[in-house]
Amino acid sequence: MKFTKMHGIGNDFIVVNAIHQPIEEAMLPELSRRMNHRKFGIGGDGLILILPSRVADYRMRMFNPDGSEAEMCGNGIRCFAKYVYEHGLHPETQLKVETLAGIKNLKLQTRGGKVESVRVDMGTPRLRRSEIPMRGEDSEQVLNEPLKVEGQRFDITAVSMGNPHVVIFVDNIDHFPVSRFGPLIENHRAFPERTNVQFVQVCSPTEIILRTWERGAGETLACGTGACAAVVASVLNNKTTRHVLVHLPGGDLRIEWMGDQRVMMTGPAEEVFEGDFPI
Amino acid sequence: MKFTKMHGIGNDFIVVNAIHQPIEEAMLPELSRRMNHRKFGIGGDGLILILPSRVADYRMRMFNPDGSEAEMCGNGIRCFAKYVYEHGLHPETQLKVETLAGIKNLKLQTRGGKVESVRVDMGTPRLRRSEIPMRGEDSEQVLNEPLKVEGQRFDITAVSMGNPHVVIFVDNIDHFPVSRFGPLIENHRAFPERTNVQFVQVCSPTEIILRTWERGAGETLACGTGACAAVVASVLNNKTTRHVLVHLPGGDLRIEWMGDQRVMMTGPAEEVFEGDFPI
Repeated sequence: MKFTKMHGIGNDFIVVNAIHQPIEEAMLPELSRRMNHRKFGIGGDGLILILPSRVADYRMRMFNPDGSEAEMCGNGIRCFAKYVYEHGLHPETQLKVETLAGIKNLKLQTRGGKVESVRVDMGTPRLRRSEIPMRGEDSEQVLNEPLKVEGQRFDITAVSMGNPHVVIFVDNIDHFPVSRFGPLIENHRAFPERTNVQFVQVCSPTEIILRTWERGAGETLACGTGACAAVVASVLNNKTTRHVLVHLPGGDLRIEWMGDQRVMMTGPAEEVFEGDFPI
Repeated sequence: MKFTKMHGIGNDFIVVNAIHQPIEEAMLPELSRRMNHRKFGIGGDGLILILPSRVADYRMRMFNPDGSEAEMCGNGIRCFAKYVYEHGLHPETQLKVETLAGIKNLKLQTRGGKVESVRVDMGTPRLRRSEIPMRGEDSEQVLNEPLKVEGQRFDITAVSMGNPHVVIFVDNIDHFPVSRFGPLIENHRAFPERTNVQFVQVCSPTEIILRTWERGAGETLACGTGACAAVVASVLNNKTTRHVLVHLPGGDLRIEWMGDQRVMMTGPAEEVFEGDFPI
């Protein structure tokens, strides 16, 4: 089975044209586990299938390394868009993609036949305490609220982008002990479904640096929803404008929190290599 | 650059035919770092080059993910042997390979044009305390010697296979806290160059189960020299015969400690997929 290995700022995917290479539904979970395995397979954070759609230009399905199906993935859908454009499946810069999270309208910025960046609608943040979800008396927002972790106090802002995020502002992101406090906050009893944790250093009203502790994954190179949550929290705390350049360990994203409350994410995607996996 | 992704019981390598695709010497460290990167590259534990030799059938060079060159690698050289046999470069079952650790004589077991297993001479164990190296008064062997780690006492046997190994026998390997005691023993002040740690459960005089804590890498799926050291220690402690089947998390190896003191390792290698990496 021919595949293309791609990544969006370090979040890496195995992209398969399943229009030309149809795959039996029953095979998919096991195939995703095998292909995503980093030692016995190709290795990846997900298997992305390009499929035909009756309601959009194309349909994206994404399978996790554990075989489960993901609803949507901001870094993954940029790889999807780059693939269909550069491989001639959709030579236009507006692209509608059917996903389990609805139809996504993408805008591709191209130069010389190559996709330089892709803009994705990441949806509307949820801010109510019960929507995070976070324990305690329900409130409009969890804004700059103290959380005690092993005797240390953090002022947290909580944002759901479909998944829970805690955002914490720190002075020196390079030296912050992410791997020490990340798991303690992830598993804090305040969060019944655990939480992702975003550590943010504000550089200017239009620029932040982000390090992410991902629920169940540890510190990662890139978290698309985390970048969105970090900018929403930065705006709510009057630290930035609504249009921010976010530096993540794997690369940069531009996040814009629009007047209608939707969050738009713009970032690159890269092709790494092509291969053929025997099935 | 065309490559083949392979693994030997979960120790995975990018194998490149550098006879057909010559690579500039100066490019090699950076190329190895890029290709072995698990997110931005192909991902692997090493880049293996197949080269011509004036003193053997072929020459193997192996580069680590950090760009440094490895002397030899038992799991890697089995992949090398499978490649040269199955790709028609050397259609014979005896193979001499030039490495930085000398010329290695390999024996291939084949069936229907496929390599089922490869036998590799892993050299002679060193047992003197100073050869491990381990602190304390020099002695012929470090055999079943108590080592205190956070109040707990372990009886250790120390074996060098070119790299240092501490072997510890445990009753229930599945439930042993490898990730707790591994790093404490690795960094114990008794070992000036740190040490690999092999936790062994003896099943019978001809069969053991092994879990490895690798120096600088943590718990791994497979450690070839570790399997050799574990069998040497098992023989020295009268727990097994000199010919043992070793079960590792990534698969099985057969280890034989010969009368002339050399240790022979026999195990499989697998091809995972083929690809083309742009350089």
